[in-house]
Amino acid sequence: MISCFSQSRTESVKSDIFKIMGKVRNAISPTREEDYPEWYQQVVKAADLAENTPVRGCMVIKPWGYGIWENIRDSLDGMFKETGHKNAYFPLFIPKSFLQREAEHVDGFAKECAVVTHSRLEADADGILQPAGELDEPLIVRPTSETIIGDLFARWVQSYRDLPLLINQWANVVRWEMRPRLFLRTAEFLWQEGHTVHATPEEAMDETRLILKLYADFAENWLAMPVLCGEKTESERFPGAECTLCIEAMMQDRKALQAGTSHFLGQNFSKACGIKFQSEQGREEFGWTTSWGVSTRLIGGMIMTHADDDGLVVPPKVAPTHVVILPVTPKEETREQVLQSCRELAEQVRSQDFAGSAIRVEIDDRDLRGGEKYWGWVKKGIPLTLEIGPRDLENGTVFVGRRDQGSKREGMEREALVNGVRSLLEDMQKNLFDRALAFREENTVTIDSKDDLYAYFTPGNPSKPEIHGGFALVHWDRDPQWEEQLKSDLKVTVRCIPEEPGETGTCIFSGNESPGRVVLAKSY
Amino acid sequence: MISCFSQSRTESVKSDIFKIMGKVRNAISPTREEDYPEWYQQVVKAADLAENTPVRGCMVIKPWGYGIWENIRDSLDGMFKETGHKNAYFPLFIPKSFLQREAEHVDGFAKECAVVTHSRLEADADGILQPAGELDEPLIVRPTSETIIGDLFARWVQSYRDLPLLINQWANVVRWEMRPRLFLRTAEFLWQEGHTVHATPEEAMDETRLILKLYADFAENWLAMPVLCGEKTESERFPGAECTLCIEAMMQDRKALQAGTSHFLGQNFSKACGIKFQSEQGREEFGWTTSWGVSTRLIGGMIMTHADDDGLVVPPKVAPTHVVILPVTPKEETREQVLQSCRELAEQVRSQDFAGSAIRVEIDDRDLRGGEKYWGWVKKGIPLTLEIGPRDLENGTVFVGRRDQGSKREGMEREALVNGVRSLLEDMQKNLFDRALAFREENTVTIDSKDDLYAYFTPGNPSKPEIHGGFALVHWDRDPQWEEQLKSDLKVTVRCIPEEPGETGTCIFSGNESPGRVVLAKSY
Repeated sequence: MISCFSQSRTESVKSDIFKIMGKVRNAISPTREEDYPEWYQQVVKAADLAENTPVRGCMVIKPWGYGIWENIRDSLDGMFKETGHKNAYFPLFIPKSFLQREAEHVDGFAKECAVVTHSRLEADADGILQPAGELDEPLIVRPTSETIIGDLFARWVQSYRDLPLLINQWANVVRWEMRPRLFLRTAEFLWQEGHTVHATPEEAMDETRLILKLYADFAENWLAMPVLCGEKTESERFPGAECTLCIEAMMQDRKALQAGTSHFLGQNFSKACGIKFQSEQGREEFGWTTSWGVSTRLIGGMIMTHADDDGLVVPPKVAPTHVVILPVTPKEETREQVLQSCRELAEQVRSQDFAGSAIRVEIDDRDLRGGEKYWGWVKKGIPLTLEIGPRDLENGTVFVGRRDQGSKREGMEREALVNGVRSLLEDMQKNLFDRALAFREENTVTIDSKDDLYAYFTPGNPSKPEIHGGFALVHWDRDPQWEEQLKSDLKVTVRCIPEEPGETGTCIFSGNESPGRVVLAKSY
Repeated sequence: MISCFSQSRTESVKSDIFKIMGKVRNAISPTREEDYPEWYQQVVKAADLAENTPVRGCMVIKPWGYGIWENIRDSLDGMFKETGHKNAYFPLFIPKSFLQREAEHVDGFAKECAVVTHSRLEADADGILQPAGELDEPLIVRPTSETIIGDLFARWVQSYRDLPLLINQWANVVRWEMRPRLFLRTAEFLWQEGHTVHATPEEAMDETRLILKLYADFAENWLAMPVLCGEKTESERFPGAECTLCIEAMMQDRKALQAGTSHFLGQNFSKACGIKFQSEQGREEFGWTTSWGVSTRLIGGMIMTHADDDGLVVPPKVAPTHVVILPVTPKEETREQVLQSCRELAEQVRSQDFAGSAIRVEIDDRDLRGGEKYWGWVKKGIPLTLEIGPRDLENGTVFVGRRDQGSKREGMEREALVNGVRSLLEDMQKNLFDRALAFREENTVTIDSKDDLYAYFTPGNPSKPEIHGGFALVHWDRDPQWEEQLKSDLKVTVRCIPEEPGETGTCIFSGNESPGRVVLAKSY
C-alpha cells in the first residue's frame, strides 16, 4: 500500500530520543496508515488537548486545546462584530413546549436531548439523595437555541426600524451522542450560534451567504484548512431550515468534515415564535430569519487536516504559543548565561507582530531531558522551537525547528532569526494551507459513470489500491432516491451542491438531465 | 426624609424632553428614594441590559449588558493569565455521586440544583412528548465545579513537579433561586471559577489571598467600586471550605453586596476526589486546593454603585462604547456636512488610547428626535455624548455631556476635546470611584453598644431618621450565638472580618474580649 501521507515528510528526520531507544519510529503510535481513528485519539492525547471524563460523552478541554479555542473564538468574534453583529447571552434551558413549536425542529432534536425534570436532591428513607421538586414542565438543555431566542426576538422586534436584528451567542450546547469522539462529536460542545431577523427573504438569504463566506475565509486563512462552499440537499438540511449552506473540508483519510453551517430559515421560526413587525407600508409581517454556527469541532478538523505521525501541527495564527525557547544547559557554570540569553531572545521575538498581535513566546526551562522536552513541543504542534546552548552563545546562532517541516532542525544566525521570525510564521501558515489544498486536489476526481463511482468508494479497487475514496464530482438529477441508495450502499453522501453550479450534464444514475455536479464523499 | 442620593447631582439639570412633557422629572421612575428595588429593575430595563425570560429565573443578557460582561471578562482574564493561570473547560454535568463526595458541599447545593434524569423526548399514546431514556445516574447541572474538576485533577496531579496546578474556567452555572433578580440572583449565571492545587497549605493560602487582592484591584480600578477585603465567618463560608475570603461593596441603599469570594479548601476536596502527589521526599500526600469566583453579579454591583435617577452610569473602563457622537441635522441641506464632520471626529477620537485599547466610538445617526436619542444614551450610562450640529461646524465646537455629571452638557472647543478625551475618561473613572468611596465612608460607623447597634439598623431611629443602617464596625467575641441572633432580630450579618485585625476590644454582646472589629450590614 502506497502511503497517502507523503506530504508530511517525517520519514527522513527521526529524533534523537527515538534513536536512543534503539529504533527509528514516529512519536505517535499507531501512524495514520496503521490505524487512522486511533492515531487521531493519540494525537489529541499527546498534544494534551482534551480528554474524556466520567460524564459520558462530555470532554474536558485542557489548556493547550482551550488556548486554540480562544484564538478561534476571538478572531471569529472580530469578524462577526465587523459585519455588524452583537453578542448576547440566552438561557441554557428551553421549555419542552418551546421545542415543540416547530415540527421538523423537534423531530430533529428530541431523540438526543438532556431533560431536566427536578429542581433539587432530597435524601430518601435510606439517606440516599434522590431527585425531588419535580418541575411543572420539563426543561431541555439547549441543543441549539432557535426556539428560545425566537420567543425573545418576538418581543424585541416591533417595526421595520428594529431590523435587521443581528445577534450572536457564544455558548455550550448538549446533544446526546451515541458514539462520542473528542472534538468531533461530543455530548456537550462549545460553539457560537448566530440568529438574525430580516424584513425580506432576499436580505435574509444575503446574510446566510455572507456568513458562509466569513466561515470559509476563517477556515482557510486562520485554520489553513481549504473548504468547499455549497448547499446541503434537503435530506441533510438543518431541521426547520429552508436552505442550509455549508463548508466542507477534506481530512487526511479523505473523508469530508462538515465544518460550519449557515441556515436560511424562511418564516418557519418567525411563525412558530411570533416574530412579527410592522413594515414601512404599515402592514404586519412575519420576519425572515437565519441561524449559523461553528463549534469546537473546528479543532477536530484542524487536527485531521495538519497533524502528522509525530503529533499535532497547529497553524501559527491559532497557536496559543507561537515560539518556544528551549535552553540547553549541560553545565551548571554556563546555565545562568544561557537563560539570560533566552530571556533576551524572548523579548526580541515578542516585540514583533504576527497576525495582528504580538508574537507569543514561552521559555521552557523545566528540569527535563532535552529530547523529552523538545518532543513534547513537537507533539503539541508548536510552530517554532528555538534551542540555545553554550555554543550558540559563542556563535550567535539558534537551532531552529519548524513544525511544518517534520522534526528537521537547523542552525540559524540569531539576528536573521529575529528579523525573519514573522515571515517564518507567515510562510508556515501558507505552506500548511497549500499542502492541504494540494492533498484535496489530488484526491478529488470527476466521475461520469455509476460503476466508476462504486469502484472509487469501494476499498480495494484494483486500479488504485491505495485509494478508497476522496471527493467525487458527479452529475446527479437531484432525485432523492439515488441519494438514499448511495448512503445505504456505500455510506457516501452528497456533501454539498457547489455554489458555482457549473455545466449541466447527464445524471450518472438515471441518465436524466443534471443541473450541475455535486460533491460526494464519505464523512464524519 | 433627607435624600441619601445627593451625590448624583441630577436635581439641577433636567432634560428638554421632560420639560416638553410638561414637568421636570427624572428619566427613571421611581427614583431611588421612592422605591429602590423597583428603581433597580427600571434602570436595567431602561439601559437595555437584560430581561427576564419564560424560563424561570433565567435572564437574557442583551448586547449592552453582554458588552459590559465581555470587558469584565477580558480584563480579569488578562490578570489571571499574568499571574500564571491557564483556562480550561470542564463538563456542564456532574454525576450525582460526585456531588455527594464532600458532605458539607452537597448539603450546600442539593437544595437548589437542576437535575437531568432523561436523555430524550418520546411521544406518548396521545402524541405528547414525554421524557424518555432514563439515565442510570442523574446528572446535576453544575452549581460549581469542585467535585468534577477535582476528579480530573486527581488524574493530572502525580508528582510535586505537577504543582502548583493553576486553572480557571469561564462558564455558566445553575442554582435554583426562589427570588431571582436580574444579575444579582439568577438561576443561571455566567462566572469564572478558578481551581488550584498546591503542595503545601501555605502556598494554597497565599494563592487564596493573591486572588482576593486581584479581585479587589479589579473591582476598584475597573468597576470603580470600592470594596472591603476580609474573611467570612464559619456560618457564611463556602460549603466545604476551610476559609472563605471575600470582597464586600456598599450599594446606594447602604446594603452590602458580596462581590467575589476566594476559598482555601484545605485537603477537603483533595481527600474527597483523591488528588494525591508524590512529594520531593517521595511521600504520597494529598494536595491543598483553592477555588474562587466572580460572576455576572458584578454587573448588579456596578449598577447599584453608580446608577442614578436618570439611569445607568457605566465606568469608562468597562463601557462597551466610550463615546457616542450624535449628529444634529435640523436641515436637509447641511445634513451630509454634519455627518461627514462626525465621521472625522470619530476617527480622531478612535485614534486615542484609553485603558490599554483604542477609545470605542459610535455614531448614532438613527432617524429619531434629538432628545429621545440623547436620553436613550444617558439611560444606557454611556460615558461621553458628543453632539454636533451645523452651528458647531462653524464654531469648531462640540456639545459635550459627561455622564457622571448628571445630564448637564456644555460646549467645548473641538480640538481641546480631541486632545482631552482620554483625560476626560480617566477623570470620570476616578470621580466615580471617589464618590462611591465617600458614600461608603459617610455610611460606615463605629458602634460600641448593642443598643446603638439595634437602633442603627432599625428603620426610623429618631436621631437619624434618614439612615437605617450602613456598615457598622463592632467588637464581637466570635461566638456564633450573637451572629444568629443578629440575623434573626435585624437581618444583619457579619459581612467580613477585615484583613487588618485592628485593636482588640470588648464584645458589645457579651462583654468578653474581642480580637478585633468586624463589619456588620444588611446585604443582598
